[in-house]
Amino acid sequence: MTPDSLASSPRLYVTAPIVSGAEMAVTDAQSHYLLAVMRCVAGDVVRVFNGRDGEWRARVAPQGKRRATLRVEAQQQPQIPEPGPWLLFAPLKSARLDPLVEKATELGVARLMPVITHRTVVTRVNLQRLAAISIEAAEQCERLTVPQIDAPRSLADVLQDWPSAAPALYFCDEAAVRGGHAVPIIRALDDARDPAAFLVGPEGGFDPAEQNTIRACSFTTSVTLGPRILRAETAAIAALSCWQGVFSRQGVVSAK
Amino acid sequence: MTPDSLASSPRLYVTAPIVSGAEMAVTDAQSHYLLAVMRCVAGDVVRVFNGRDGEWRARVAPQGKRRATLRVEAQQQPQIPEPGPWLLFAPLKSARLDPLVEKATELGVARLMPVITHRTVVTRVNLQRLAAISIEAAEQCERLTVPQIDAPRSLADVLQDWPSAAPALYFCDEAAVRGGHAVPIIRALDDARDPAAFLVGPEGGFDPAEQNTIRACSFTTSVTLGPRILRAETAAIAALSCWQGVFSRQGVVSAK
Repeated sequence: MTPDSLASSPRLYVTAPIVSGAEMAVTDAQSHYLLAVMRCVAGDVVRVFNGRDGEWRARVAPQGKRRATLRVEAQQQPQIPEPGPWLLFAPLKSARLDPLVEKATELGVARLMPVITHRTVVTRVNLQRLAAISIEAAEQCERLTVPQIDAPRSLADVLQDWPSAAPALYFCDEAAVRGGHAVPIIRALDDARDPAAFLVGPEGGFDPAEQNTIRACSFTTSVTLGPRILRAETAAIAALSCWQGVFSRQGVVSAK
Repeated sequence: MTPDSLASSPRLYVTAPIVSGAEMAVTDAQSHYLLAVMRCVAGDVVRVFNGRDGEWRARVAPQGKRRATLRVEAQQQPQIPEPGPWLLFAPLKSARLDPLVEKATELGVARLMPVITHRTVVTRVNLQRLAAISIEAAEQCERLTVPQIDAPRSLADVLQDWPSAAPALYFCDEAAVRGGHAVPIIRALDDARDPAAFLVGPEGGFDPAEQNTIRACSFTTSVTLGPRILRAETAAIAALSCWQGVFSRQGVVSAK
């Protein structure tokens, strides 16, 4: 078992506590992935994490042709804090929302908060589907946690109930492209030392009344992502990319 | 005609010179978009650009039910330089490549360069399809140019023929996630004053020999995007987002 083969072994998110020597159940989908997709056989190495106990090495124990369990061996990595931003976004069609959730997870988002705005067309969100996408992304990108995903709420309620201990909210304000005032995002994040939250609008943007409400909140800062009009999901990914870039530079998020 | 309604009018890329008072043909797809999708009628305002003559106001002149021409009125914006980065990327399946091209265009990429690497699985690239996607993205995001899209070449050839006047090449080096040496991307871009090019690998990454070849080139700098393993298209979008963030802050790319 070389370090390289451990690094390239399948990586699974589980919900149960991970205990040395334990035999762990996995979901039907994970059994299928291990046995049918990855063609694992008895004794093959996998890695497991649950967001609390770090990452562990385990070995596959097939139970017949369709079901597998895992025998837990040793901890590979202790749990470390993964401080990430919150993302407030208006739900989009799944062709655009699914990649957004995937990429936000890869970019380290800690909490996904769907908000319903005046111009939000898509108001039903399949939370189970989004959770599955974010778990798969967390498995692939080597996170030790999965993002929290909230049920959709109206933007007005979320702003009204913003806790005083919550992160500063950066409003990705596309009015800046048309001459409005906003701080370039990298400059705004340079000055920040605390966790961040980002707010991006729906396709078509926030309506003027909403824009005024958002800007009037004491905890919001209008930021601009650059000189072009970005699609909603592009804006979200760009904001999170800048956050990751700035915080990686500052060593707040350091390479493992 | 208020400024707001001009800003929300359809925006079309054309290839012909744009001349005040001229009657311009548009493609069949554009006729369909104007007449069937946007339901434009005679005299409705559209905006046109061709990458050379700035942005112009024009009015729709339907020619029957299915074909439209445009009558050019006045220039709305002069052509300005849009200095953007080059992106060298291994072709991906279209479900991941199409959004990459769309988002790279929104984020200001000047030149898309598909490169074939040792582990590149997808070697055929539909350049016409990618051009159509990038044109649509340029229309939507208010660019005055569309990116240049190169035919695929082998990575080895591209590196060997790198012109001395070409931009510095930032190698998005995921070895850094596993303890290798790379400069955090924002810090690398902070020090840069010239145009940039970014290189991202295929799914599965570059093989070790390729990594060494890339790092050995005098014009490359290994950069890290953060502590996680990103999918190929996420890495490309994150790198371009950081570039846009840094250059917007420096005022090199300023809001219109």
